[in-house]
Amino acid sequence: MAKKTKSNKRQIILEEAAKLFKARGFSGASMRELGAQVGMEAASMYNHISSKDELLDHICFHVSDTYISQLAEIERTEDSYVEKIKALIRLHIRLMVEDGAAVSVANNDWKYLSEPRLTEFKKARKDYEKGFAALIEQGIAAGELQPVNVSVALFTILSAVRWVELWYRPGRGVTAEELEENIITMLLSGLKK
Amino acid sequence: MAKKTKSNKRQIILEEAAKLFKARGFSGASMRELGAQVGMEAASMYNHISSKDELLDHICFHVSDTYISQLAEIERTEDSYVEKIKALIRLHIRLMVEDGAAVSVANNDWKYLSEPRLTEFKKARKDYEKGFAALIEQGIAAGELQPVNVSVALFTILSAVRWVELWYRPGRGVTAEELEENIITMLLSGLKK
Repeated sequence: MAKKTKSNKRQIILEEAAKLFKARGFSGASMRELGAQVGMEAASMYNHISSKDELLDHICFHVSDTYISQLAEIERTEDSYVEKIKALIRLHIRLMVEDGAAVSVANNDWKYLSEPRLTEFKKARKDYEKGFAALIEQGIAAGELQPVNVSVALFTILSAVRWVELWYRPGRGVTAEELEENIITMLLSGLKK
Repeated sequence: MAKKTKSNKRQIILEEAAKLFKARGFSGASMRELGAQVGMEAASMYNHISSKDELLDHICFHVSDTYISQLAEIERTEDSYVEKIKALIRLHIRLMVEDGAAVSVANNDWKYLSEPRLTEFKKARKDYEKGFAALIEQGIAAGELQPVNVSVALFTILSAVRWVELWYRPGRGVTAEELEENIITMLLSGLKK
């Protein structure tokens, strides 16, 4: 029970850290401000986490591990390439809707990671992009997808969903499901009727 | 002729300023470094421009004026909504390919504009987005476009093209024409065959 409370506190610190890093940038965020945000003295926070660097590390790798493991799972299915790519687009949108602050930090503040983790993070991102690109390439080869340049298709998809993290919140008049379906319609079937 | 040379120098300063602001951010860029980049003493540059703020102002409004005037021109044509939206997507991609540094500065450093220009810039951007959204809305009403949420469609398009400014350069194995056609295929007709 004491263990549970301790890990809950750690979870709260991690969530608030992601929000604070998103708002201030990693270098502009202070542990004192984070303490105020979670309602703890900075000194007490160190019972749950070891440093500001550890928070950044955890947030960035939580996001990249999610992408990597979901990609592996999607690769293993027997779905069509169209379905696999839809599943990846859904994953990006869901992560942004559910954990937008963490995604923002992983997108913008990863450069403050220390070695060797910085190199590991860049490799994970590269591996993910290669895996995603391979699905597009195979989908084109299988005749399921338009014969576009694979890099152009990959970056257009990855870029097309990034505004979600900046814009989406409840009260925008769009449900999370509508958002997913609309973006998938545009990227897979096109805006043209 | 002397006038011409003077305006050429001003043009060179503006182009190099956009590159420097993109590389360092507006607040991190110094006039001394800009002088070194254009091969002039900082003092001589002031024969051609009045301040670092003026450079930012010129770059940001050059980009937003281009968007606004092209939108007005496209609105006046009798083309279908599909063709109008294609023309706007082409405009975004071309501006990024031909003047990527200026687009990057207008996207990222506009917040350093001083009032009243800051408010004017934000209004211009809002007007542009409203005009673009109206074309999507009318295209849906005319039955030319899928009945998606207009904001989702607008931001997906604007976001989908933004990677171009970070990635595209000659030698990437994709011509500017291919880039345009591929992105238009994806956004209008979809990646699915």
